[in-house]
Order: sequence, then structure tokens, then C-alpha cells
Amino acid sequence: MNRLSDRTAIVGIGATEFSKDSGRTELRMAAEVVAAALREAGLTPADVDGMTTFTMDHNTEIEVARSVGIPRLRYFGRSPYGGGGTCAIFLQAAMAVATGVADVVVCYRSIKERSWYRFGSGDLAMNWGQDGATAEAVRYGWYNPYGLTTPGSYAALFASRYMHEVGATSEDFGRVSVSSRAYAASNPEAHFYGKPITLDDHQASPFVVEPLRLLDCCMETDGAIAVVVTSAERARDLPSKPVLIRAAAQGAGDDQEQMTSFYRPETATLPEMAVVAEELFGSSGLRPGDVDAAMFYDHFSPYVLAQLEEFGFCARGEAAGFVADGHLGPDGKLPTNTHGGQIGEAYMHGLNGVTEAVRQLRGEAVNQLPGPRNILVTAGSGVPTSGLILGVEG
Amino acid sequence: MNRLSDRTAIVGIGATEFSKDSGRTELRMAAEVVAAALREAGLTPADVDGMTTFTMDHNTEIEVARSVGIPRLRYFGRSPYGGGGTCAIFLQAAMAVATGVADVVVCYRSIKERSWYRFGSGDLAMNWGQDGATAEAVRYGWYNPYGLTTPGSYAALFASRYMHEVGATSEDFGRVSVSSRAYAASNPEAHFYGKPITLDDHQASPFVVEPLRLLDCCMETDGAIAVVVTSAERARDLPSKPVLIRAAAQGAGDDQEQMTSFYRPETATLPEMAVVAEELFGSSGLRPGDVDAAMFYDHFSPYVLAQLEEFGFCARGEAAGFVADGHLGPDGKLPTNTHGGQIGEAYMHGLNGVTEAVRQLRGEAVNQLPGPRNILVTAGSGVPTSGLILGVEG
Repeated sequence: MNRLSDRTAIVGIGATEFSKDSGRTELRMAAEVVAAALREAGLTPADVDGMTTFTMDHNTEIEVARSVGIPRLRYFGRSPYGGGGTCAIFLQAAMAVATGVADVVVCYRSIKERSWYRFGSGDLAMNWGQDGATAEAVRYGWYNPYGLTTPGSYAALFASRYMHEVGATSEDFGRVSVSSRAYAASNPEAHFYGKPITLDDHQASPFVVEPLRLLDCCMETDGAIAVVVTSAERARDLPSKPVLIRAAAQGAGDDQEQMTSFYRPETATLPEMAVVAEELFGSSGLRPGDVDAAMFYDHFSPYVLAQLEEFGFCARGEAAGFVADGHLGPDGKLPTNTHGGQIGEAYMHGLNGVTEAVRQLRGEAVNQLPGPRNILVTAGSGVPTSGLILGVEG
Repeated sequence: MNRLSDRTAIVGIGATEFSKDSGRTELRMAAEVVAAALREAGLTPADVDGMTTFTMDHNTEIEVARSVGIPRLRYFGRSPYGGGGTCAIFLQAAMAVATGVADVVVCYRSIKERSWYRFGSGDLAMNWGQDGATAEAVRYGWYNPYGLTTPGSYAALFASRYMHEVGATSEDFGRVSVSSRAYAASNPEAHFYGKPITLDDHQASPFVVEPLRLLDCCMETDGAIAVVVTSAERARDLPSKPVLIRAAAQGAGDDQEQMTSFYRPETATLPEMAVVAEELFGSSGLRPGDVDAAMFYDHFSPYVLAQLEEFGFCARGEAAGFVADGHLGPDGKLPTNTHGGQIGEAYMHGLNGVTEAVRQLRGEAVNQLPGPRNILVTAGSGVPTSGLILGVEG
């Protein structure tokens, strides 16, 4: 188990509006949110000496640093596998701060995943590759000829098998989306503000890739988010209420592929999430029962059910009933994606789950829960992934 | 200063042959060297729970892990900026092991930078970008129209200004190459084995980009290298003589760009190297005088002179004289690139500097020095960079 628990804290967050066309570059948005997060943290660009982001981010640390006026860096690292990196960039930040490699690390992500490119365009292997034949592109080459060309197509195979194994139905997936859209409906920052859906709406929505309906899928968004991490000690002297990184972890499982782990004996489980769960709970000493809310990565609704099971909130096959009983709602056992998630608020490659957890723990959320102390945040499912438990002192 | 000194160690190394056409994929080579490094370390794939590599590497951790039989991972991270990541992937490994995030981390790099693609092809901005307009590509767009399209073209501007400022000459650059080629001549693994050069050969070689001559430039190579890192404590129980990571650091300077930092007040210095040097020496308590040999990143010979100065082995402007006095040779004050470097052995994006330092410290090098205890290894110059001091107990 790692020794990172409670050694670092989040002291500032910054976010753009979420839109379908931001009207400005990713670099501009990255600079805006980094500057905003630093202002909120009561820090200046000169305080920053570390930066982390996704390998997929188009904006290098030094381009962002120059744009914001950050003078020099002692740490910069990237986390791979798309949304699997959501919490991993905080793991890197926590490692750097805990070892004294850096004092103040800004974690950021800026994407125009609606107006500049679209992950669902069907040319993923091309998009994700660089020059020449990457090992990834070769692997996708085994799946693409059979029509598996988008994240939705991979997720649909997972969802079908999950339905077969545990008896889940399309309605069970739909209840996840209905819950997220209910939260989004009262969140002015959400794309679907004021637009709740019913289960009938979900059932009437067309299949994107059977069994996934349109309303099972996250949206595509332009936007950027930045989050400032420093030591728990320094955090006490800064203006924002510190949000502790109680645990941070990363995980890849046996026979792991990126969205296509179809050669495992079981294809409707998320063993990489189990690796993350074991480390999060083991390193923090917390248990699922200590978690007051969850921000599950929800690019597709079925993965929320599987995550409830992998993280131990439900036994295998019981997540559908858990959701049907209303436990993702504000009065449930595990209020989930209280900002609306990526299904209801915005697709920020998971980072809006981090900012929502911070706001909930500070008591500043738009759909504020009563005094949450520990919140789980997860990252991309079906890929090598990561997780965080964020918390406040009692 | 960071607190990583002497907490982790290198316990195994693996390398392919170096060639102009390896005849096999990068993934195959990566798997070969990871397996070889683990065998040498006395470990099995099941012992590995962390992997690090360059952002530019085409072979994801999970593809390599599946190929080798590594079952699951708790850490995987990437270091950006090409050769600037050479030592940064060890910084990440050291951070992960020191904090208990991982127990055994394999750092690897596999490239067919001769037979599959070439960094000097002149379409760098295209090669290095991904989908759409990266901030990097936009920045290169300010330089490309003026004929600055290759690493050599950027390095030539640095070299010209360096010559102007300190009075260095083409012969001064040449002596670096002559020294490296002398080491390579007695190294059977080197591309230029048995092929030393004279200063006259250097002076007779054509300009690639004036003032850089052909013999100032590193070569292009196919090959792969892997290195296993674990805790200093666990290293004592393994078969290889442990090589301690005495210090690991990363650095980017004010107004840093990737190879094109031409808007700084000074353009012929390497302030990012100074950031690394300060951290390496500060965190380890060592001084330049404690360093017995150096593996400087030598994609172009002039950068070796500038690094001698930035790391404090010479005062500004005195590196040329230091080299002319023979101090890079086996009997000099700072034997340098004793494998032949990237000018004489192979272009392994700097990782062959790490393996050579390990071999020297173990007493297994082909051009073995008498009992070195501390060796400096550096990473890409002219880019955000990194460094290591590796050592053995006395």
C-alpha cells in the first residue's frame, strides 16, 4: 500500500464554461483555468513548480507555463490512456509533493472534444496514434474490421455481456442516466440544465450501439479544468478550505487492453478498478461505508453499475437494484455524480468529477449534500485507470 | 530539494543490439529488453507493478506488459519532451517506489528511429503532433517557415550563438566527437566500433546545418533498452550489484520552448540544465568534484560543452579548453560518454547513457574506469530536461 494518504491537498480549482464550441483555442482555455485555479488558491504563477496532464492533452506544460507566466518547473509528467488518467495526474502530483520533488503542482486538461475533434468519429486508431504503426494501432486493427471503431462499440460489448451475466436491463442503465440528468437539471453549469429526463425518455431514445441508447452515452464538450495541489501543511495557510487527497491510486489488470479487454476469462468485470479500489481503501484505511458520495466516470451508464460493484458498494449483480432503490440520489446511500456527471454536465475527461468533489467537500456545490467528509472519484472505465478519495477533516 | 536520494536502486538492465534496421517491431524489441532486464535482476514479470516510458514511445505499458506476461500494474506514467525524458522516467520510478505506489518499476524505451521514421526528416511538427492543431505544432509554425524544420537547425542557432559568446570554434566541437568516437572504437556494441576519427576527419566532414558538421551530430538507430528500479532495501537481496539512484531531477527554465528557446535574453545557455543541476547536487549533497564520470546527452556535440558549464565542471566559456586538455578521456578529470555516446554508440534517446553508467558502476563496462563511485547522466538538451546521479556504496 502506498504512503500518500493525507499528505497533500487540493487548494484551488478553475474551470471554463462548458460548451459545444468554445470559440477559442485549447491553449487559451488551459491558460485561463490555470490562472483561475491559482487565483482561487491564493498563489501566483511563480509559486508553481510542477504540472501534470494527460498524454492526450494537446497543450504542453511549457506552452501553458509560458502563457500563464510560470517561470520554471521541477516536475512535469503525463498519464496515459485517455480518461484513465483523470485521477492519475493527481497521483503524480501527490507523489511529487510528498517527496519534495515539487511544492505546488497544477493538474490540468483542456479539450475541444466537440468542435475540433470527436472521440466517437470512428477513426480512433488514427486519432490516438502518432507517427507510424503504434502497438496500439496494431491492436485496434484486430477489432476495427469487425465494426468496432468507436468507444461506444467497445462499451456495448461490455454492456451486453454484463446484462447476460447479472440480468441487468436497459431500464437499469437508464436509471443511472435519469439520476444524473436530475442533478444536471438544477446545475446552471450543466449542458442539460433545466432538462431532466424520465425513464420513458431513455427507453424512447435510439440505440447508438445496441444495447447502448443515446441517453446512456456521455456528451462531447469543449472546455478546460485546472486543479492546484500542494502539501497538506502548506494548504492550511492558504485561503481555500483544504481538500485532502486521502488516497490516490492507479491500476491495470491482467490481460488489460484499452477498451477492448475481450480476451479475459470474464469480459463484464473491471479488474483494473478492483486494483484501484484495493489501493485506495488499503492506503487510506477507509472502507466503502466511509464514502459519502461518489463521482463515477460515466462515459457510458453501464459502467456506473459495474463500478458500484468493483468498489464494494454492492455485491456482484446487485448494483441495478441499488440504483433502482434511489441510492444515487441526494437522499440515497451513495449520492453519485451530483453535478450531473459526464452524462449531464459535461465531458471533461473526468476532471469535472474532481472539481465537483472539491465543491461538495467545501460546502460550495450547487446540489450540496449535507456535510460529506469523504468522496470517491474514479477515472475512465474499461481502460487502465485511476482513482481518488478526497476528504476534509472532521 | 527532493528527498529521493539513495532510496531506490537499479537492479537490472536489458538492451537489444543497435542497428539501422532491427528487422522486428518496436513492441517486440520492448518485450525482449524488459524480459532481459528482469532476468538480469533475478525477478519475474509477476514482480513488476510499475512501468514508465517516454510520451513519444509507441508501445503502451499494457501492450508491453501483456507481451512479457506482467499481470497487473499499480503505476504507469510518461515523461514528455523526447530525449528530455531520459532521466525523468527514473524520477517517476523513484517517486513511485519511494512512496510505496509501486515496488518494482521497469523503465523502457523502444525506437526504430532509423528504419521506421526519422526525427531529422523535416516534418517534426507533424510527427510530434497528434490529432489537430497542438499548441506545439502552432509554436513550430513560427519557426518552420524560416527553414527551421529539424533538430539540427535549432541546434545550429544555439551553437552559433555559443561560438560568438565564448569564442568556441568548430574544432572545439570536433574534439567532443573525437573523444566519443575513440571510446566507441573499442566498444563492440557501438555502431562505430573500430572506427575512430581524427580532428581532421571532423573538419573535413560537410556541414549539415552550419556550424554543425556531420560529425557533430548523433546517428539514427533502431533499438530498445529497459532498466529495472526497486527500493534500495530490496536491491540488496537481488543478484546484481545495486546501483543507487543518488539523485533524480527534472527541470524547465524561464521562457522554455522545445529546442527553440530563442526569445530568452540569453540563447546559448541551458537554464533548464541549471535547474536540474541544482536539484541533483542539492538533494544528494554531492558536488561536481564528487562526480567520477558523466554521460552527457550528445545529440549534437556543442551541447556537451554547454552542459559541462551548466553542471559546474567548468566556468562559463572554459569547457572548450577543458575538452582540449583531454579531460573527457579515460585519464581526464571527467571521463565522458565512455560507451561512445549517441555520437559513437547509438541514438537510444539517451537511455544508453543510463546503461553505460550502470555498467561502469558495476565494473562491467567495456571501457572500464577505475572504480567510479558517482556518475552523472543527463537528458535531452535544449528541451525541458532531466538528470540522474547514479552511484555505488563505497
